[in-house]
Amino acid sequence: MTIFLFTDFGSADLYVGQVKAVLAAQAPRVPVIDLLHDAPAFNIRAGAHLLAALAARIPAGSVTVAVVDPGVGGPRGAVAVLADRRWFVGPDNGLISVTAARAARAEVYAIGWEPRMLSASFHGRDLFAPVAAMLASGKRRAAKLGKRKGLSVSLGAGDIAEVIYADHYGNLLTGMRAAGVPRERKVAIKGRKIAHARVFEAAARGQLFWYENSLGLVEIAANGASAQRLLRSRPGDRVG
Amino acid sequence: MTIFLFTDFGSADLYVGQVKAVLAAQAPRVPVIDLLHDAPAFNIRAGAHLLAALAARIPAGSVTVAVVDPGVGGPRGAVAVLADRRWFVGPDNGLISVTAARAARAEVYAIGWEPRMLSASFHGRDLFAPVAAMLASGKRRAAKLGKRKGLSVSLGAGDIAEVIYADHYGNLLTGMRAAGVPRERKVAIKGRKIAHARVFEAAARGQLFWYENSLGLVEIAANGASAQRLLRSRPGDRVG
Amino acid sequence: MTIFLFTDFGSADLYVGQVKAVLAAQAPRVPVIDLLHDAPAFNIRAGAHLLAALAARIPAGSVTVAVVDPGVGGPRGAVAVLADRRWFVGPDNGLISVTAARAARAEVYAIGWEPRMLSASFHGRDLFAPVAAMLASGKRRAAKLGKRKGLSVSLGAGDIAEVIYADHYGNLLTGMRAAGVPRERKVAIKGRKIAHARVFEAAARGQLFWYENSLGLVEIAANGASAQRLLRSRPGDRVG
Repeated sequence: MTIFLFTDFGSADLYVGQVKAVLAAQAPRVPVIDLLHDAPAFNIRAGAHLLAALAARIPAGSVTVAVVDPGVGGPRGAVAVLADRRWFVGPDNGLISVTAARAARAEVYAIGWEPRMLSASFHGRDLFAPVAAMLASGKRRAAKLGKRKGLSVSLGAGDIAEVIYADHYGNLLTGMRAAGVPRERKVAIKGRKIAHARVFEAAARGQLFWYENSLGLVEIAANGASAQRLLRSRPGDRVG
Repeated sequence: MTIFLFTDFGSADLYVGQVKAVLAAQAPRVPVIDLLHDAPAFNIRAGAHLLAALAARIPAGSVTVAVVDPGVGGPRGAVAVLADRRWFVGPDNGLISVTAARAARAEVYAIGWEPRMLSASFHGRDLFAPVAAMLASGKRRAAKLGKRKGLSVSLGAGDIAEVIYADHYGNLLTGMRAAGVPRERKVAIKGRKIAHARVFEAAARGQLFWYENSLGLVEIAANGASAQRLLRSRPGDRVG
Repeated sequence: MTIFLFTDFGSADLYVGQVKAVLAAQAPRVPVIDLLHDAPAFNIRAGAHLLAALAARIPAGSVTVAVVDPGVGGPRGAVAVLADRRWFVGPDNGLISVTAARAARAEVYAIGWEPRMLSASFHGRDLFAPVAAMLASGKRRAAKLGKRKGLSVSLGAGDIAEVIYADHYGNLLTGMRAAGVPRERKVAIKGRKIAHARVFEAAARGQLFWYENSLGLVEIAANGASAQRLLRSRPGDRVG
């Protein structure tokens, strides 16, 4: 059993440690792995597609806390989704919906458990982490899960033709899965048409290209340079 | 037993790993949690108030290595403070003093143990981590602690009316505890008067507001935007 | 037994978590320590000297995954190096070569094991992490190591007179080991001549100085200020 964390809390900020303090207290001895804490801030759509792509690396039997939650403290619900034998715990705002829609089998549960103290702005620490700890340590009944028909917000299973993440190398990850994109096709972004290359070395130094990245997504990169800087691009930009 | 780390070493730099290598060697099997490694660099005052706010999340029985240490290699002392049954180990420069002053019960000890090799610039690795490892693994006598009257530098228990941290969302944490601030009061910063809102959703998009954050502090934020950028503010700025 | 990670994957990006997911699955219960994930991107030379300096902190009996790999997917080989009883696993592009050349005893092995699925761009996850897991959990035979005469690319054991890392304080680490540099010598960089100081406190506020850092390297710093900003310097800049 492992707990994975996927958030926009920021890897450098003081939030992840507070989540881990809760997990250490309530699920000691369960390993915790940071998948990503710099999902584009407030961006549910980009986060949902990033999480769905990363989900292929999340093993059955694990619990993932998934939080990009601009509506925290408002009326949005809290859910636990069992998708292909992996739990995903987080806000019912669409973030988990792409992963759920792509799963062969997904069950949705409302979270009935309530903490004694619930801050208005940090449900990751106060609500989702304790529930993840319960699920990871065999105390599912304590979470008071109630079966539901489905999620309140669903973004569907399909791809999105936009940039969903820019990494520190300057590579631009898109929400398009590469399996469906012929290698001879050029990918349009910011008025440019980018050709395919299999690996970085196959492109000339400084040249833009697209390739199937290690998550199976179309990614726009430049050999030894930053595609993000060359294209002045960022999450949300259209790709075609 | 858990070891917490609170420093300005930088979460992206090569210092935290060296501290953890020492802890893994000298206190194997003790979990280590990163509370914060991007406390404002060299800023003891901001760090002291951040640590005091985070201390509410640090459980009894744990050991915290707390290092913001611009005077490392100089004459400042090294202390271990037992505050409400939690150890804090670090420089005697005021960093731990707000936490100690707010504790119901605090005992101060000078660290008598000396490493064979002490670098001039990295006591976090060479001195504080080994002592934390001793305290966390039941070898308190090895640390050669000597009871003292109190800390050499104390910043007191009171609040400070200034920005102590800007997170990656652009939220501005202040050193004022919200419990003492009426909700109808406006908070002044950079010539602006900011009104209260309970949650992000309660403010108009892009609008500045203050709220009680998840650590109980007055925090200045903007719905879906960066208060830091809107106000061009940073740690040390006055709030009123 | 501990696994250390040294890469340019970025501490904030989504790559380290994927490596850790593999390690958790294949070498559960082996602690994993992040030494550095922000080695200068694509810069094998700087990475090789940083790793060699950090190697003094890596204990015998451990396994280090070392990846700065701009040629991933191309013809460069994959090696496991046993240097003074510590394994280093990574690309055969020079990254491990300084550490190997400085070791009292080093053995080089080609990695014969091949994963079922090998992405073109993420051998850290698909190849080096599984092999590290094998070595860390006593399954060396599974890695199918083949003894070799030496590394294909070697950068030698000597120092390099250049900046190899700029930390978040703005301190500039160089590839020069301080043991061989007389304290009265001034260090040249960007047309300036920088004098020695033993500790930060010994320099005037804002003044540039060099000192022997906690890894034994010549480091250029400024008391309470950023040498990087004052000198507009970055990795690769010449030092003399």
